[in-house]
Amino acid sequence: MDELRRAARIAADVTADHLAGVGDRPVWQPVPEPDHAWLTRQELPVAGRPLVDLVHDVRTRILPYPMGNGHPRFFGWVNSAPSPAGVLVAPLAAALNPSCAGGEHAGVLLEHTVLRWLAGLVGYPHRPGGGLLTSGASMATVVALAAARQRAADRVGVDVRADGLYGLAPLVMYVSAEGHSCLRKAAELLGLGNRQVRVVPVDDRFRMDVGALRGLVDRDARAGLRPFCVAATAGTVNTGAVDPLDAVADVAAEHRMWFHVDGAYGALGALAGGAAAGYAGLARADSLALDPHKWLGVPVDSGCVLWRDPALTRATFSLVPAYLRDERDGGLGWFSEYGPEQTRPFRALRTWATMSHLGRDGIVRLVGTTVRRAHTLAAMITAAADFELLAPAGASIVAFRYRPTGQDDHLDALNQRIPGAVQRRGRAFLTGTRLAGAEALRACLLNPATTDDDLALLLDEIRAAATGDTSPTPP
Amino acid sequence: MDELRRAARIAADVTADHLAGVGDRPVWQPVPEPDHAWLTRQELPVAGRPLVDLVHDVRTRILPYPMGNGHPRFFGWVNSAPSPAGVLVAPLAAALNPSCAGGEHAGVLLEHTVLRWLAGLVGYPHRPGGGLLTSGASMATVVALAAARQRAADRVGVDVRADGLYGLAPLVMYVSAEGHSCLRKAAELLGLGNRQVRVVPVDDRFRMDVGALRGLVDRDARAGLRPFCVAATAGTVNTGAVDPLDAVADVAAEHRMWFHVDGAYGALGALAGGAAAGYAGLARADSLALDPHKWLGVPVDSGCVLWRDPALTRATFSLVPAYLRDERDGGLGWFSEYGPEQTRPFRALRTWATMSHLGRDGIVRLVGTTVRRAHTLAAMITAAADFELLAPAGASIVAFRYRPTGQDDHLDALNQRIPGAVQRRGRAFLTGTRLAGAEALRACLLNPATTDDDLALLLDEIRAAATGDTSPTPP
Ligand SMILES: Cc1ncc(COP(=O)(O)O)c(C=O)c1O
Ligand SMILES: Cc1ncc(COP(=O)(O)O)c(C=O)c1O
Repeated sequence: MDELRRAARIAADVTADHLAGVGDRPVWQPVPEPDHAWLTRQELPVAGRPLVDLVHDVRTRILPYPMGNGHPRFFGWVNSAPSPAGVLVAPLAAALNPSCAGGEHAGVLLEHTVLRWLAGLVGYPHRPGGGLLTSGASMATVVALAAARQRAADRVGVDVRADGLYGLAPLVMYVSAEGHSCLRKAAELLGLGNRQVRVVPVDDRFRMDVGALRGLVDRDARAGLRPFCVAATAGTVNTGAVDPLDAVADVAAEHRMWFHVDGAYGALGALAGGAAAGYAGLARADSLALDPHKWLGVPVDSGCVLWRDPALTRATFSLVPAYLRDERDGGLGWFSEYGPEQTRPFRALRTWATMSHLGRDGIVRLVGTTVRRAHTLAAMITAAADFELLAPAGASIVAFRYRPTGQDDHLDALNQRIPGAVQRRGRAFLTGTRLAGAEALRACLLNPATTDDDLALLLDEIRAAATGDTSPTPP
Repeated sequence: MDELRRAARIAADVTADHLAGVGDRPVWQPVPEPDHAWLTRQELPVAGRPLVDLVHDVRTRILPYPMGNGHPRFFGWVNSAPSPAGVLVAPLAAALNPSCAGGEHAGVLLEHTVLRWLAGLVGYPHRPGGGLLTSGASMATVVALAAARQRAADRVGVDVRADGLYGLAPLVMYVSAEGHSCLRKAAELLGLGNRQVRVVPVDDRFRMDVGALRGLVDRDARAGLRPFCVAATAGTVNTGAVDPLDAVADVAAEHRMWFHVDGAYGALGALAGGAAAGYAGLARADSLALDPHKWLGVPVDSGCVLWRDPALTRATFSLVPAYLRDERDGGLGWFSEYGPEQTRPFRALRTWATMSHLGRDGIVRLVGTTVRRAHTLAAMITAAADFELLAPAGASIVAFRYRPTGQDDHLDALNQRIPGAVQRRGRAFLTGTRLAGAEALRACLLNPATTDDDLALLLDEIRAAATGDTSPTPP
C-alpha cells in the first residue's frame, strides 16, 4: 500500500497542476505522433507496470490532449469544466467503490439526498423514490420515456413489459424542432419508431409553437394513433430557449399525455435573476431531466432524472431477482428497480461535493455569472459590424454568425468552416449548428472563469479563422 | 487552486488509509444514527463549504459505511474490490473530464486501445469500431440486443428505428434459466416483451440444455414467431457455469439467430489453467458482454460490449446520416453513434491503468488464484459434515448450503436466513439465491487478498449466524 500512497500523492499534485495550468495551454490540439500511436496502438504489457509509471504516462501522454472543456475559452456543445470538489472526491468514490444498485450503505443513502437537493433547486416536487442519477441526459430520457410508455400501455390494458409493443396502436410523441436528438434516440431504442416522433415547429424565438402542437395532436388522435407524450425543453442546446412549459403542460393535461421536460442543460437557468417566470410550468412535469454534469460542472457521468410517480417508474423496471432479495429496503426498494442499470456507480458523491462546495448561494452566483456573460457576448455581437446575432441569448447560449460585408453569397459555407478552423488554432473552441435553415455558430457559457477579455478574443479568433489563418498557438 | 492542492493531498492519504485498513474494519455495518440522518436528511448549505471539510466528511461519515466489496471476506454477488491503479487514476480522469462521445482527444483514443485489449484477452475477434465501454453489463446487453433487433428487422425489410415494433412478427429470444435478469430487462426495455423471452432449462451442471433450446426454437418457428437471438452465458451469476457455447452457436447459425454471450463476469475465466476448452465457441459470438468492473476489479462503472459487425451497431444507433458516416474521424465516427449515450465519461482510463498495472501475466495470475481459491472452498465444503455443495465450482463461484444434521425439514428457511445474519455480524458477507428450487448460499471469489483462513472463517460465521448469534464484530 505504500506504493499506492506515494503514487496517489503524486497524482494529487498532477491533478492540481493540471487544473491550475489549463488556461495556459491550448484549448484543444490535435494529437501528434508518437502520442497518437501510443494512445491507439500500444500493446497490453506482459508484466505489470509500477503505479508511478502510470501517473507519469497520464501526465505526459494523456492530460496534454483534452477535449477542451476545462478551458475558460471552451464554448462548445454543453460541456463544462470539472468542479474542483468533484475532482477532489473522485478517488474517494473509487476507493469505496460501492454499487449503488441498492442496500444500506453510504453510496445509496447519499443519492437520496442529492436527488432531493436537485429537485429542490428547481422547485420540482420530490419524495423518496422520485428520481435516479444516470450517466447523462440520454439515459435519463430513456428512463423517463420508458415510464411514459408503461403508463400509456397500462391505460389500454396492455402489459408492455410482458407483451411488448406488438399489439398496441402506435404511440406518438411530440418534440420541438429544437429538441435534443436524445429524445428521438430514446424513442427508437424503446421500439416506438421515429416516424411516431412528431417534430413540432418553433416560434421566432425557437420555442415550441403550442398552437402547432395542438394541431398535430388533434390530427393524430383523429387518425386513431395514440398521442402519449410531449417533451418540452427548458434550455435548448442550440439557443438556450425555454419552451412555454405551462402552455405545453395544459395540452398534455387535456390529452392525458405524459409531460416530460428536458432541462438537462437549462433547468438551472431558473435561478438567474428574473428568469424564474420563464420556467413556470416546469413543476408540472411528469418527468424532468437535469444534468449535474452540465451547468453545475460535476465531472461526467452525472445525469439525473426526476419523476412525479415513484411507483410507476418502479413498475416499469423492477425485477428484484431472487439473489438480490433484501429486507432492508424501507419500502423504497433498490435504485436498480427504477432504471436499466444493475451495478450503479457512486455518482452521488461528486454531485454532493460540488453542491456542498458551492452552496445554494454559489450555485445561484454561478448561473447568474454565466448568464450575464452570455448577454455580454450577445451585446458585443450586436455592436460588431461583422457579426450577426441569430437568436436572443437564452439560458447561457449565444447563437450567431460571422457576416463580414460583401460575403453574403456564401455565408453558410463560411460559417460552416469556422468552428473547425477556430478549434485548430487552439485559442478558443466553439461549435456550429443549423438554425432556421442557416449555418450558425453557438457559444455556450458554463465556466465561471471565463472573462470579458475571453469573449473579445473569441470574436477575434473567428475573424482570423475566417480569413484562413489556421496557425495554432505557439507552444 | 492552493486549496485544491492541499485538499487533494489529504484525499490521497485518506484514500490510501482506507484501502490499507479495509481488512481491519467490519465488512459491512448498518448505518447508525446520527450518520444515517446526516446521509439522508442533510440540507443543501446556503453558503459554500471548504474543500477540506468535504474530505473530512467523506472520511468520517461516508467511508465507514461501505457496501462491503472492498473487504477480503466479501463473497456477495459479483462485486469486486477496487484495483489500486483504478483508484489512483480516478482524479486524473475527473480533472481531464472529457466527454468520450467522440472527437480527437486522449479519452477517445485510449478507449480504442482498451477495447482491443479486452477482446484480445479472451480471444474475441476485434477491429476498430468493434465495441464500446458501458456503465456495466446491463447497458452492454441493451446495446447488443438492440443491434440484434436491428438485424432481425432488416432481414424482413422493416426499418425498426423508423417504424418501431408494431408491424413485426414477434421476435423471440432464448436465455437459460440461469441467465442474468439483465437479459430479460433489456428485452423489456427494447419493447420485445418478456413473453417472447424463452427460458431454456439447464442440465445438472446448470448449463443451457441445447437439446431443449432446439426444441423451443423449432416450436416457435413453426408457430410463425421469429426466433432472433440466443443469449448464452459464460459464467453464470449463481454457479459460474459456462454454457456449451459451441453447440449454442451451432443452433444460432442454423436458425440465423444472433448469438450473444454474457461473459460479464466469467469470460475471463478462460484464462485459468485448463479452462480454455470450456469456452470454445465464445469467439463465434455476434456480441459479447465482458465487464472490467467485475473480475478485473476496475472501479465501477466499467462495463464493455464487443461485437463482430461495427457497421450494424452503428446503423442501430447513429444519428449521422448514412451518406456522411464515412467522412467523420477516419470512417469510424463517434462512439456515441454506437450506443444510447451522448456524453460519455472517460471510462477507459481506469481499465487501462488496471490492465497496465497487472499486465497480462498479472491478470492470468489474478484469475488463476481466485479460481483455485474457489476450488479450495468447494473442497472444504465437501469435507465438512454440516455443509453441502450444490454445484461444481464454476469460474470462481461456489454454490452450497448449510445442512446440519437433524434440520432437513427446514433447510430452505434456515439458508434463507443465513446471508442477512452473516452480513449483520460484520465478519463476512455472502448472498443467497435459489438453485434448482432450493435455497442456496453462494460465495463469489474475486479478491486476490482473500486467504484460506478467510474461507474457514466464512464457514464458521455461517455456523454462528445459523444458531441465531447476531452479535456484530466488536469495534
Ligand atoms: C438540452 C439537452 N438535452 C439532452 C442532452 C443530452 O445529454 P447527455 O449528453 O448527457 O446525454 C444535451 C446535451 O448537450 C442537451 O443539451
Ligand atoms: C453474468 C452476469 N451478467 C450480467 C450482470 C449484470 O451486470 P451489471 O450489474 O454490471 O449491469 C451480472 C452482474 O452480476 C452478471 O453476473
